Amino acid sequence: MTYRAPVQDIRFILHELADLDGVLALPGFEEVTTDLVDAVLEENARFVEQAIAPLNRNGDTTGAKWSDGSVTTSPGFKQAFIEFGQGGWQGLQHEQEFGGQGLPKLVGAPASENINSANLAFSLCPLLTDGVIEALAAVGSHEQQSRFIPAMLEGRWTGTMNLTEPQAGSDLALIATRAVKQDDGSYRLSGQKIFITYGEHDMAENIVHLVLARTPDAPKGVKGISLFIVPKFLVNEDGTLGDRNDVWCASLEHKLGIHGSPTAVLLYGSGKGDVGEGAVGYLVGEENRGLEYMFIMMNAARYAVGIQGVALSERALQQASAYAQERVQGQALEGSAGPVAIANHPDVQRMLFTMKALTEGARSLAYVAAAACDKSRRHPDQAERANNKALYEYLVPVVKGFSTELSTEVASLGVQVHGGMGFIEETGAAQYYRDARILPIYEGTTAIQANDFVGRKVLRDGGAVVQALVHEMRATVEQLEKAASTSKADAEGLALIARRLAAGIQAYEQASAFVLGNAADNIRAIFLGSVPYLMLAGVVHAGWQMARAALVCAEYANNGNATDFHQQKMATSVFYAAQIMPRAEALAATVLEGRVASEYAGMIQAT
Amino acid sequence: MTYRAPVQDIRFILHELADLDGVLALPGFEEVTTDLVDAVLEENARFVEQAIAPLNRNGDTTGAKWSDGSVTTSPGFKQAFIEFGQGGWQGLQHEQEFGGQGLPKLVGAPASENINSANLAFSLCPLLTDGVIEALAAVGSHEQQSRFIPAMLEGRWTGTMNLTEPQAGSDLALIATRAVKQDDGSYRLSGQKIFITYGEHDMAENIVHLVLARTPDAPKGVKGISLFIVPKFLVNEDGTLGDRNDVWCASLEHKLGIHGSPTAVLLYGSGKGDVGEGAVGYLVGEENRGLEYMFIMMNAARYAVGIQGVALSERALQQASAYAQERVQGQALEGSAGPVAIANHPDVQRMLFTMKALTEGARSLAYVAAAACDKSRRHPDQAERANNKALYEYLVPVVKGFSTELSTEVASLGVQVHGGMGFIEETGAAQYYRDARILPIYEGTTAIQANDFVGRKVLRDGGAVVQALVHEMRATVEQLEKAASTSKADAEGLALIARRLAAGIQAYEQASAFVLGNAADNIRAIFLGSVPYLMLAGVVHAGWQMARAALVCAEYANNGNATDFHQQKMATSVFYAAQIMPRAEALAATVLEGRVASEYAGMIQAT
Repeated sequence: MTYRAPVQDIRFILHELADLDGVLALPGFEEVTTDLVDAVLEENARFVEQAIAPLNRNGDTTGAKWSDGSVTTSPGFKQAFIEFGQGGWQGLQHEQEFGGQGLPKLVGAPASENINSANLAFSLCPLLTDGVIEALAAVGSHEQQSRFIPAMLEGRWTGTMNLTEPQAGSDLALIATRAVKQDDGSYRLSGQKIFITYGEHDMAENIVHLVLARTPDAPKGVKGISLFIVPKFLVNEDGTLGDRNDVWCASLEHKLGIHGSPTAVLLYGSGKGDVGEGAVGYLVGEENRGLEYMFIMMNAARYAVGIQGVALSERALQQASAYAQERVQGQALEGSAGPVAIANHPDVQRMLFTMKALTEGARSLAYVAAAACDKSRRHPDQAERANNKALYEYLVPVVKGFSTELSTEVASLGVQVHGGMGFIEETGAAQYYRDARILPIYEGTTAIQANDFVGRKVLRDGGAVVQALVHEMRATVEQLEKAASTSKADAEGLALIARRLAAGIQAYEQASAFVLGNAADNIRAIFLGSVPYLMLAGVVHAGWQMARAALVCAEYANNGNATDFHQQKMATSVFYAAQIMPRAEALAATVLEGRVASEYAGMIQAT
Repeated sequence: MTYRAPVQDIRFILHELADLDGVLALPGFEEVTTDLVDAVLEENARFVEQAIAPLNRNGDTTGAKWSDGSVTTSPGFKQAFIEFGQGGWQGLQHEQEFGGQGLPKLVGAPASENINSANLAFSLCPLLTDGVIEALAAVGSHEQQSRFIPAMLEGRWTGTMNLTEPQAGSDLALIATRAVKQDDGSYRLSGQKIFITYGEHDMAENIVHLVLARTPDAPKGVKGISLFIVPKFLVNEDGTLGDRNDVWCASLEHKLGIHGSPTAVLLYGSGKGDVGEGAVGYLVGEENRGLEYMFIMMNAARYAVGIQGVALSERALQQASAYAQERVQGQALEGSAGPVAIANHPDVQRMLFTMKALTEGARSLAYVAAAACDKSRRHPDQAERANNKALYEYLVPVVKGFSTELSTEVASLGVQVHGGMGFIEETGAAQYYRDARILPIYEGTTAIQANDFVGRKVLRDGGAVVQALVHEMRATVEQLEKAASTSKADAEGLALIARRLAAGIQAYEQASAFVLGNAADNIRAIFLGSVPYLMLAGVVHAGWQMARAALVCAEYANNGNATDFHQQKMATSVFYAAQIMPRAEALAATVLEGRVASEYAGMIQAT
C-alpha cells in the first residue's frame, strides 16, 4: 500500500508540544523560519513517498546480494541514494561549516522518521553515515574532517560503525582487532568485524569505516580501545580515490528482516588489495579513548534507532488502518443490513487506536527530546543548556528502548488486524513484524539502554531529572482536571486522562524511589527491574505528551476551532490513557517486587 | 539446538495440579494405569525428539512446494508421518471403537504439546486430522465413520477443515461454496476455499476434506451452511481408493512462518479428474446444521492450537535458555575475574524466567482444562459432568487466546535473549518468532475467542463459572498465606505469590462485574475490552495454577523432599507472581475504562 508522511501530526507536535518557535529562536537558527521548516517537511514527504517508499517491498523480496566480495543492493536503491544525496538530505541537521544545512534536530527528526517509514532498510545507510559525520565533526582532526565529511554530506560516500566481533557483542571489552602504528603515523589494522550495516555495497563511491581496535600495548578491557578511520579506498590529498584498502566483505548475514540492508562480515588485513597486508587506518583523537568517541556516534545512533521505532510503527499503522477500512466482514455489533468494514468492530478499533496511541505517544516524546537536544547545544542561558542536556541524555535511552519495544508490539498488532491475510507475505504486514524485531537489539539492546538509564541517568544525579519531571507532569494533571471541569465535549475523556496520568506518575515515583533507595544494598534487585523501569518511564512520559496534546485539543474545541484532526487526537489520547497508561502500575509492581524476586533469579537453569 | 520433551514438568502438572489419578479412575479408563501413562509419555518423548524435531529447521528452509497441482512436503516429513501413523500416535485419544488408543485428553494433551514443540509445521497435519476424526465420530453416520475414520487413525489418510473463502474469513455467514444434491444422495460441490492447512500433500494416500457449503435453497447466513465430506480420492465399498475427485490445489500461500505446512487454495468443481464436473461430497448429519457440526471440530482444534502456543513457547524457551548458559559476555554485576555466561545477568534471568513462567503457567492451565474435559465426558456423577463441562467450555477460549498470544511474546523474548544472533535466521530463534505469529489468528482470532468467552461463557450463565472460580482461587490465597507463615525457606516468596494472586483475583472480579453489569446497556464498551478481559482471565487462572504449584513445592520443602526441580518451580512461580500477575490490574483498568473509551472508539479513521 502507499505510504503517506504524517505531516499533520508532525506539525502539531512540533508546534504544540515540542516548542518549535523556541527552538527556531535559538542562536544559529536565525535563518530557519517556520515557512522554511514547512517547505522542508513538504519536500521531504514528497521525496520519500515517491522515491523511497516504492522500493520497500523490493528491498524485502530481493535483498542485498553478495558475490565474490562485492555487494549488489536491491533494485532501485542505488539510484534513490543518488537522489537522496543530491537533495541534500544527508546534510539536513549537520553543521553548515562542512556543507550541511544546519537545521535543528527537531526538524531532522521528522525527516528521518519519514524516510525510515518509507523504507527502513534503505534508511540505515544514511543513519549510520550520520553517526560517522557526527563523530568526526566532534573529535576528528581538522584534516580528517575536511577530507571525509563533505563527500559524506553530499551522499557520494557513506559511513559505518565497526564495533561488534564474534566474541564481542554487548561486551566491547572483549574487542580483539589489532592496530599497529606505522612509521608514517598511520596504522595497520587486522581482525574480523561482524554485523556491519552497509559494510559493503554499491550505492556510493567510497565507504568510511569507523573501527574500534587495540594497539599492541593497550590496557585490557574498554580502556584500551582506540578509534580508527579505515576508508574502503584511500583518499588522495586532492580528494580523489586512491588504492583499494585491505578491508573486505567476507559474507552477508541471512536475516529475519531488513533484507534490503546488507549486514556484512568484514575482514581487516587479509592481504588483498593495493596496500599490502593490513588495512590502513588513521587514529581518531587519542589512543585508548575510542569507546568515549564511539559513544558520540552511538548516542546519535541510539536516538535515531528510537526514531526508527516510531517510523516502523507509523508504517504498520497505515497499512493496518487502510486494510481495516477496506475489508468487509461481519455485521455491526448492533446489527446491520449487511457486512461492514472491520474498522467498525470494537476490537479492531481497540487494536488500531492502541497502535495509533503508541505511535503518536512515542513520536511526541522523541520530538520533545530533539528540542531538548537543540536547546542543550544553543540556548544562550547556561542553566537552560545544562537542564536540557540532562533531560536529553535522560530521554535518549527511553526513546530508544520504549519506541523500539513498542514497534514490535505495533507491528504484531498490525498483522493481527489483517487476520489470516497478515500471515501472507505478499500482504506486507509481515515485513514490518520481521523488520521491527531488530530495533530493540541493535545500537544497544533494551537491557543496555536500561542499564544506561538506571546507572547514568537516574542514579548518578540522585534522581534530579526524575524529580523535575514528576513536578512538571503533576502540573499537567492539574491542568487536565481544570480542563475537564470546563470542557463542553470532552469532560469525561479529560477526566479519564487526568486520573490515569496521575496514577502513572505515582507508579513512576514509587519505582524511582525503589531504584534510588536500593542502589547501595541491592543492585541485583534494581537491575532485575531495569527494563520494566525503563518501559515504565516511556509509558508515563509518552502518555504525558499525549495528555498535553489533549489539553491543546480541548482548547481548540472550547474555542470552536477543533478540526477532525483535533478530535482524532483527543480520541487517541483517551485511548492512550485507557489502554496504555495502566501498564505503568503493572510495571511499577514488577520493579517493587524485585527485592524478593532477585533472591530466586539466580536459580534459572538450562531447560 | 536439540529439543528435549519437558517430561518432568509434564509429570508434575499431571499428578500435582491436574488430578491424573482422578481422571484415570473415571469409567472407561480402567486399563489406563499410571505406569502406562508414564510409558506413553516416555515413548512419545523419544519419538518426537528423534524422528520429528530434527526436521524442524528443514521444514522452515525448504518448505512445501507446489508443482502442477501436486505438493511435495519438506524432506523427511513423509517418512516421519509414516512412523507417526505406525506408532499409533494419531489414535492416542480417540475411541477404541474405531481403532484408537482411548487414552484421556489429559494424556493426549502433553503428547500433542511435545510433537508441536518438536515441529509445529509438521504437527498441523495430525492436528487437523484429529479434528476431522472427532467431528465424524460425533456426527457422522455409522457408514461414514467406518469408511473414513480407521484409515485416518492409522495415519494412512489425513483430514482437513475447509471453512475460509476469500470473502469469508472470520465471518462464515459469507460462505458461497455450492453443494447440489444428486439422484444417488451424494452432492456435487463447486467453489473456492483458501487457507486450507495440508489441503494437498504427499504424506498420505488420501485426504478427507470436511467442507462447509450451501445447498441451493439454503437460508442466508450461518443457518444455511451444511457440512460435507469430500475425499480427494473416492473410497470404494471395500475401502480401496477409487476415482480422483474434482478437488484441486491451485496454489500454496507464501507465508511468514510454518513453511513446512502447505497452506492450500482448493478449487472444487473445476471439471478435472475422474468424476466429471463438481466434487463428489457426502452430507454429514442434516442439511443447514454444518456450522454446529464444524464447531465440534473447531472446539477440539481451538484447544489444540492453545496447546501449540504452549509448545512453541517451550521450544523458544529451550533455545534461549541453552544459548544463555553458553554465551559468555560481560562481567558479573558484582564484578568477576572475566566475562561470564549471560544467564548470570539479571535482565537475561528476567527474560528467561518470564518465558518459563508464561510457558509453565499456560501449560498448567491447559492440562487442568483437559482433565475437566475428560471428567465432563466420563464422570459418573451428573453434576460433576455438568460442572466440568461448563469449566472446560469456559477454559477453551482462554487456553486458545492466552497461550497463543503469549507464545508470540515468549518467542520475541527468545530472539531478544540471543541479541544480534537472534536476528540471524540460522540461529533458529527467528523461526519461532515467525511461526508463533499465526497462532493467535487461525482457528479463530483472539477477538473471536474473546467474543465467544464474553458472550457464551461469561454472560450466558450470568457469571456462574466466574463466581465458582473466584471462590476456589480465594481458597488458594488462604492456603498460600498459611504456607508462608510455616515455610522455612520460601516465606517471602509465598507471601509475594499470595498478595499478587489476591490482587489478580480482585482485578478479575472487578472486570467480570463490569462485563456482567454493562451487557444490557453498553455492549460496545464490553466488546472494546473483550480481548483484555480474556487475557486477564488467562493471566489470573494460569497464575493460580502456578500458585498451586508453589504450594506443592513448599510442602516438599517443608518435608525435606524438595528436589532441584521443585526449587526451580518455586522460583518460576515467584516470577510469575512478580512479573506476570501485575498485568491483571492493568488489564482490568483497561476493561473498566471501556465505558468512556467506547465513546471515542468510532472515531478511528484511515491514517
